[in-house]
Amino acid sequence: MANSKYEYVKAFEMPDTLIPNTWIVVRVDGRSFHKFTTKHEYAKPNDDRGLNLMNRCALETSKEFTDIVLAFGESDEYSFVIRKSCNIFERRSSKISSSIVSYFTSQFVYRWKEYFGEYALQYPPTFDSRAVCYPSDQNMRDYLSWRQADTHINNMYNTCYWALVLQGGCTPKEAEQTLCGTLSDAKNEILFTRFNINYNNLPQMYRKGSVIYRKMVTEQGIDSRTNEPTTKSKKRLVIDHIDIIADKFWNDNPDLLK
Amino acid sequence: MANSKYEYVKAFEMPDTLIPNTWIVVRVDGRSFHKFTTKHEYAKPNDDRGLNLMNRCALETSKEFTDIVLAFGESDEYSFVIRKSCNIFERRSSKISSSIVSYFTSQFVYRWKEYFGEYALQYPPTFDSRAVCYPSDQNMRDYLSWRQADTHINNMYNTCYWALVLQGGCTPKEAEQTLCGTLSDAKNEILFTRFNINYNNLPQMYRKGSVIYRKMVTEQGIDSRTNEPTTKSKKRLVIDHIDIIADKFWNDNPDLLK
Amino acid sequence: MANSKYEYVKAFEMPDTLIPNTWIVVRVDGRSFHKFTTKHEYAKPNDDRGLNLMNRCALETSKEFTDIVLAFGESDEYSFVIRKSCNIFERRSSKISSSIVSYFTSQFVYRWKEYFGEYALQYPPTFDSRAVCYPSDQNMRDYLSWRQADTHINNMYNTCYWALVLQGGCTPKEAEQTLCGTLSDAKNEILFTRFNINYNNLPQMYRKGSVIYRKMVTEQGIDSRTNEPTTKSKKRLVIDHIDIIADKFWNDNPDLLK
Amino acid sequence: MANSKYEYVKAFEMPDTLIPNTWIVVRVDGRSFHKFTTKHEYAKPNDDRGLNLMNRCALETSKEFTDIVLAFGESDEYSFVIRKSCNIFERRSSKISSSIVSYFTSQFVYRWKEYFGEYALQYPPTFDSRAVCYPSDQNMRDYLSWRQADTHINNMYNTCYWALVLQGGCTPKEAEQTLCGTLSDAKNEILFTRFNINYNNLPQMYRKGSVIYRKMVTEQGIDSRTNEPTTKSKKRLVIDHIDIIADKFWNDNPDLLK
Repeated sequence: MANSKYEYVKAFEMPDTLIPNTWIVVRVDGRSFHKFTTKHEYAKPNDDRGLNLMNRCALETSKEFTDIVLAFGESDEYSFVIRKSCNIFERRSSKISSSIVSYFTSQFVYRWKEYFGEYALQYPPTFDSRAVCYPSDQNMRDYLSWRQADTHINNMYNTCYWALVLQGGCTPKEAEQTLCGTLSDAKNEILFTRFNINYNNLPQMYRKGSVIYRKMVTEQGIDSRTNEPTTKSKKRLVIDHIDIIADKFWNDNPDLLK
Repeated sequence: MANSKYEYVKAFEMPDTLIPNTWIVVRVDGRSFHKFTTKHEYAKPNDDRGLNLMNRCALETSKEFTDIVLAFGESDEYSFVIRKSCNIFERRSSKISSSIVSYFTSQFVYRWKEYFGEYALQYPPTFDSRAVCYPSDQNMRDYLSWRQADTHINNMYNTCYWALVLQGGCTPKEAEQTLCGTLSDAKNEILFTRFNINYNNLPQMYRKGSVIYRKMVTEQGIDSRTNEPTTKSKKRLVIDHIDIIADKFWNDNPDLLK
Repeated sequence: MANSKYEYVKAFEMPDTLIPNTWIVVRVDGRSFHKFTTKHEYAKPNDDRGLNLMNRCALETSKEFTDIVLAFGESDEYSFVIRKSCNIFERRSSKISSSIVSYFTSQFVYRWKEYFGEYALQYPPTFDSRAVCYPSDQNMRDYLSWRQADTHINNMYNTCYWALVLQGGCTPKEAEQTLCGTLSDAKNEILFTRFNINYNNLPQMYRKGSVIYRKMVTEQGIDSRTNEPTTKSKKRLVIDHIDIIADKFWNDNPDLLK
Repeated sequence: MANSKYEYVKAFEMPDTLIPNTWIVVRVDGRSFHKFTTKHEYAKPNDDRGLNLMNRCALETSKEFTDIVLAFGESDEYSFVIRKSCNIFERRSSKISSSIVSYFTSQFVYRWKEYFGEYALQYPPTFDSRAVCYPSDQNMRDYLSWRQADTHINNMYNTCYWALVLQGGCTPKEAEQTLCGTLSDAKNEILFTRFNINYNNLPQMYRKGSVIYRKMVTEQGIDSRTNEPTTKSKKRLVIDHIDIIADKFWNDNPDLLK
């Protein structure tokens, strides 16, 4: 059963290299997560267990694929930013994108129990992914700003919507109509006046999403020989919920753009 | 926090449509599965639990993505053949490829316990995937023949290798040297003479891999009103371990190429 | 001045291979030919010199690139059909497409004088091109049918339009309004009633476009030794103006699809 | 003859957009120019008529496609650098690349007589082209440095080779063997000692290639009303033969990178 006569089929695999010297962003997105979160009775508008599980999966993914310099997540999506000079899998788009989404999904199922305890996973979830190149630092930062601004817009809408439905006695349709076309100020007003919610006091994780990156941290220790206290600076993967639109974050973490 | 000024970044997402009217094959491959199978003490050369889990994942994937007309698996890989006329996700390569690999991985972790029982999953596995177009039926069949011929070649090698190591007292290096450059006949001879193994009597699953497809089956039943026995022909997803290189399989299942 | 340190820039050239075993169609299109034909006072609605020049360029192109099995032209465009098994330039899209458009353009300028005589070329024209894959014979034939049906539709419209303008005393705007939304029958009627033109008697080249292919022809000769008359069958590149939508053409020329 | 049933074939045209915010370089290359220059008896190692015709074609191309900020040429090739923000033809690769190569070729045939006078063009030449993206200014400059260093290397080799053949009485084979493996210094030595040629005194056009760009120039004029002499600064397309590897050129022309 010689194989050689069939090997010509390898020629149909088209190369899909991503352009060198560009930022690669792999975005992982939940598929049919409206159904998934309903089925698993996620709290609305935000479920801490669900968000923390997403963050954990992203943290593990960032640990596994060390070319990821930053990850940003909200709701059922996570974006992984891979450094420009990265040559993993010879920058083949499908290899990079599929390995990341597979590992992320694998973590999600594997760690479900850590975050949902006795609440069993009812069926295995699916995520999709794609890889996109951003040539300049500004383009990459604008991509992240786009996602973080989106987090804010979605969260404000969802917070209002679910307040109207869960506390305000609205039907989903009525809630939609109430919010249709309203601006940020009007939504703030609804939240404050009708539900006594100060939007700005909501957890940062809901309003800003989650940012994972290697941060320079100072660690206290004890020298094992001398028993003296020591201080060391180290890079550690952290999960923060902070603004990445303004320059401050990037100025505070200059290594990210190097 | 208007989002509009960042939305230009969407223009960096390049389209990756697969050519219409071509067979799409998505191949899912285990990443670092040598390490994974060692860590999880897979039986060598073939672990039934592992193979059956792979088959189950592929079966569920074929159920979920109904455009899959046939799937072929061996070892830590599975190829999913999607019909030419399929328009799922507008034939976007990354969407199709990532959704399939994510769902497959998700099933793998989700159903691990069903196949490995108390033997716990030590860490979450990763698969990668890619989508390839094959224009003609012959090209697609040759792709599958390539994979099935590969199954035979690998399994014969592995069967000899592990017989030499596990029963023959060879070191891995000695086993490799013994097999280096040998043809099929010589390997058959080694198996038969030294280990009393008739290669052709080994389970078909090891030698032919696994084929998943919708087969016309006859189902016996009872008419609920008349209590009479009934016979119905139905399409059912089945897992077979048969030759798909010769014409017979395709002649027996003419719907596959329609 | 060592070159090696700059050679990394070659890695930015992305491969653009066309999928094997598919028909390749390269379409060459005049750029701003409305302006070009006005400037060069082309006869309206069809200029024989212009069409014959286009045909000649396509003939020479089909001679130069022997993988072209058929070319179809109308107005300022020409489509070149390249056989499925062709491996010219390793099927690199830009190589194939750019070489054909360059050679076609080169011929156009080079042979202008043969068709326009003393009427000098006022400025050098531009064509663009693209290469598209068609997996099945039917897809490729449907592509050609699309272009030939388009030829008919355009030519009928243009014939009416210019009759109204040149003979009917209409302004361009009035001609447009007269024809707006009319079907084929109505246009036939206008031509016949108002201008005594029987559309079906117009030259086939205007109505059907031009088809270039290698046709089996019988050639009479004289045997140089015996001085006897001889008959030989030979493949010759010909320019025809015939229907390629119906099966007849393809049945008469079975080699085209081989 | 309705066209609609064939229009589905348009779906086979795959998009080929070039990534936004990247430098686009279109390189135009002579096809079989060894044969072309021999047939047309080009002077060796450099033919001024041929080089000046190439430069003229590139100048006209840069005039026609105003997004071209710089063009660099040597021998039978020309590279056109298109600014990052360019949106011509929606950045479709084949449109951009084919239009440029077609116009360039068209100019070549159209203007042949201006440069070769009575020496008639024997047959129409072909060029091919491809478009490549360079994300950073440095990548784009390195591309140009690669081409200009190549110009130097090729020209030094060719100058030696043809001196050996035309003046030194070597056969082509002997000339090749003499030069095989020699470094720059050795070639300089051969030229100077054996042929009394000081390489550095050769025309810059041969050694540095040709650079076309919009240069700020000062133009003297006469005010038509006052009859006073005037001085105006203007951007003019110029052809220079200067070093573009070092920073000087880019510092002197800061607009190029804007």
